[in-house]
Amino acid sequence: KMTDLQGVGSPDLTSTDLYEKLNAQGEKVRTLKSEKAPKAEIDAAVQELLKFKVDYKTVTGQDYKAGCPPTNIIPNSNGPAVEDGDDQVDPWNVSTTSAKGVDYDKLIVRFGSSKIDQELINRIGRITGQTPHRFLRRGVFFSHRDMQQVLDAYESKKSFFLYTGRGPSSEAMHVGHLIPFIFTKWLQDVFDVPLVIQLTDDEKYLWKDLTQEECYRFAVENAKDIIACGFDVNKTFIFSDLDYMGMSPSFYRNVVKIQKHVTFNQVKGIFGFTDSDCIGKISFPAIQAAPSFSSSFPQIFNDRKDLQCLIPCAIDQDPYFRMTRDVAPRISYPKPALMHSTFFPALQGAQTKMSASDPNSSIFLTDTPKQIKNKINKHAFSGGKDTIEEHRKYGGNPDVDVSFMYLTFFLEDDCQLQKIRQDYTSGALLTGELKKCLIETLQPMIATHQERRKQVTDELVKQFMTPRKLEFNF
Amino acid sequence: KMTDLQGVGSPDLTSTDLYEKLNAQGEKVRTLKSEKAPKAEIDAAVQELLKFKVDYKTVTGQDYKAGCPPTNIIPNSNGPAVEDGDDQVDPWNVSTTSAKGVDYDKLIVRFGSSKIDQELINRIGRITGQTPHRFLRRGVFFSHRDMQQVLDAYESKKSFFLYTGRGPSSEAMHVGHLIPFIFTKWLQDVFDVPLVIQLTDDEKYLWKDLTQEECYRFAVENAKDIIACGFDVNKTFIFSDLDYMGMSPSFYRNVVKIQKHVTFNQVKGIFGFTDSDCIGKISFPAIQAAPSFSSSFPQIFNDRKDLQCLIPCAIDQDPYFRMTRDVAPRISYPKPALMHSTFFPALQGAQTKMSASDPNSSIFLTDTPKQIKNKINKHAFSGGKDTIEEHRKYGGNPDVDVSFMYLTFFLEDDCQLQKIRQDYTSGALLTGELKKCLIETLQPMIATHQERRKQVTDELVKQFMTPRKLEFNF
Repeated sequence: KMTDLQGVGSPDLTSTDLYEKLNAQGEKVRTLKSEKAPKAEIDAAVQELLKFKVDYKTVTGQDYKAGCPPTNIIPNSNGPAVEDGDDQVDPWNVSTTSAKGVDYDKLIVRFGSSKIDQELINRIGRITGQTPHRFLRRGVFFSHRDMQQVLDAYESKKSFFLYTGRGPSSEAMHVGHLIPFIFTKWLQDVFDVPLVIQLTDDEKYLWKDLTQEECYRFAVENAKDIIACGFDVNKTFIFSDLDYMGMSPSFYRNVVKIQKHVTFNQVKGIFGFTDSDCIGKISFPAIQAAPSFSSSFPQIFNDRKDLQCLIPCAIDQDPYFRMTRDVAPRISYPKPALMHSTFFPALQGAQTKMSASDPNSSIFLTDTPKQIKNKINKHAFSGGKDTIEEHRKYGGNPDVDVSFMYLTFFLEDDCQLQKIRQDYTSGALLTGELKKCLIETLQPMIATHQERRKQVTDELVKQFMTPRKLEFNF
Repeated sequence: KMTDLQGVGSPDLTSTDLYEKLNAQGEKVRTLKSEKAPKAEIDAAVQELLKFKVDYKTVTGQDYKAGCPPTNIIPNSNGPAVEDGDDQVDPWNVSTTSAKGVDYDKLIVRFGSSKIDQELINRIGRITGQTPHRFLRRGVFFSHRDMQQVLDAYESKKSFFLYTGRGPSSEAMHVGHLIPFIFTKWLQDVFDVPLVIQLTDDEKYLWKDLTQEECYRFAVENAKDIIACGFDVNKTFIFSDLDYMGMSPSFYRNVVKIQKHVTFNQVKGIFGFTDSDCIGKISFPAIQAAPSFSSSFPQIFNDRKDLQCLIPCAIDQDPYFRMTRDVAPRISYPKPALMHSTFFPALQGAQTKMSASDPNSSIFLTDTPKQIKNKINKHAFSGGKDTIEEHRKYGGNPDVDVSFMYLTFFLEDDCQLQKIRQDYTSGALLTGELKKCLIETLQPMIATHQERRKQVTDELVKQFMTPRKLEFNF
């Protein structure tokens, strides 16, 4: 009886891997039988088959059936709205009831990714000969997939490329939106590799009550803020989907290829789509997946299909790339590697992701020095005590203090940050002084950004957004 | 009680029209109530609302619910596999148990289209000053939508454009595949309007076990047979989806616009998709819909969005365009008009649509004169009697005789066709003689086609398939 069997013990295999193993094992049993192999040999193969079936049931919750690939490709997950404690994380919702924010260690286990540990950080430092970025040192980028493989290849002179993106749902970008771009810029600098940046204006058109013209305009405006992060036009291609799809037969061909290999059942399981969702939403994940494959950019990669992709992104985008990694081997492309960042907290506290529509929820890239000061003083959730006396006596809590969290993202000096933590915890540093420190960090940073954005001409945007060869030979 | 009410009597309204009427009527009732209108007035409006609800339930089989548009947009139908008697007609299956073929009058009622009657045929003749094509005279194109509207506009000097297409699933095309192209060529000649021809190589890739390269190659090979029908390169644009999508931002933008306005529920109702279908199939109908809108071809129509489209196609393609017509007003585009053809019967009989994969099921465009002769003599289902004596005595039945049916399609001379019908029915004409007549009609027709196809150079194909302005000014 099936129920008496133990599985082979392959819990690390994905449902798709198991499905393929089962197909192969079934084939083996049939061959042995047709060749009239010794009974013992057939029995052993059948026993093996049954064990795989047990594993398959464990991983997918469903019985194996030849010809029916697994419908849910997230290991150990039942779709997007899985609650783990009180955290919910998917591309459209992030919420937690903890003031410290989402429990990222639990998320790594749930998503089946790997922790970016000190050893990996050290290795990146060693290979690049650079101090690892503060986002690595401080656990902002905390999780990865296949990063060791990217570094192995890099060490044996095999290049890779970077891919990140943004959904242009409004003109207004806040400092949190810069996190992936700041980090990607650093990765590009230290590894010297090509970068593609996708602006999913088609997605925003499908999801929001906006016209295509509005979404496209937001894409171009957002491109200016992205360019202002300092990207090199000779190494970077920025594209709007609404534009590039209609300019690149190779991109569309990859989209269709992915769309052939993903079922509605799968996107339902991953993204929680329902029957009343429009068919545009349902097929969109293939469009976010396609830039993970170098053949989507023949002008850059000289038609090479085998270059690996590394995607730095916020952890809420991982479902798209779990799907992409599941599809990749079935269409003979390499799986993209990933580096995941934590969420950037709202000024009001780490319980939610920030909203671009609430001007007081964060510091926007268009804020004046005065607005920055007022917002932080008025809205930044404090971990300090109610009175100066109490604060001096018991100290503050930096782990729930939004000003301290923001400094973790933007204050470069480790010693200074450490001292602030100690002094705030001990009560030597008051909330007002902590806020002043954040204000003095953000004001020049935003001013510099605004200055650089002003320098970004329409001509330069057009250059970035023109499909072309970059400064790399493949 | 709802059940005691009679409907308003609007069975000719589609579910979507009724849904909109219900929304409007609900709004009216709310307004009257909030304005404290006289009770009698409110009651009358409520009574009207309830009547519409009865009609809605009759048409959709579902209760009206504000905010939930009808899920099935085919009037009086429950999806693709609806059996009417023994006929089944959808884009992938056509079957009937009657040797005379599908009952087309019933199909007109089921699909909610209009019959192409003698009056309409006469009007086309009058307006164009040409004898209506034999496909009109003989009921091959038997059904239409909004054709009167196209002619009204044409008479007041408002132009339209033609759109037809083909799914390139193999290199081999048979004579049946030419029907829409022969007719479209005639329409283009007599109305002098632009024509776009879509080759859905992406669809064939998604549905069949073929590579994109194969599908694209079939598209180009099929384009040669289509060009050999005599189309004018200055008036005709032929495109492969895999190519054109990646060459035209306007086309992709329309595809996304349509995809935003069609739900999975709708395509499930229309095409019978299931949760285990790939997301490519699910979103494909938008790609077949998009060429119905002139803004998909800005190079031809100078960015005009308001030109009406007329689509000549086989009746099995109608579901795509019912969907398109449902979407059109919601995205502010004109609904395409349609002309539907009957199916071309297999040599073995009218019970099934022909199959491009069975070489004996029809006459292929590559057949030699000898093959044509042998296939007809050996495989064409006969309506004649078993012996010459019986045939002479009782006569044959042209209505089930495939050779006679083929002559209906391809013999131009009405008198000759009428005489053949009479003589075959009376027994004066034997099956062998009837077949000889068909052989002598098809052999030169196919030979001429092959001759013209040979003249189609790769350069000419490329010209036809290059997005460009045509010989019309808009």
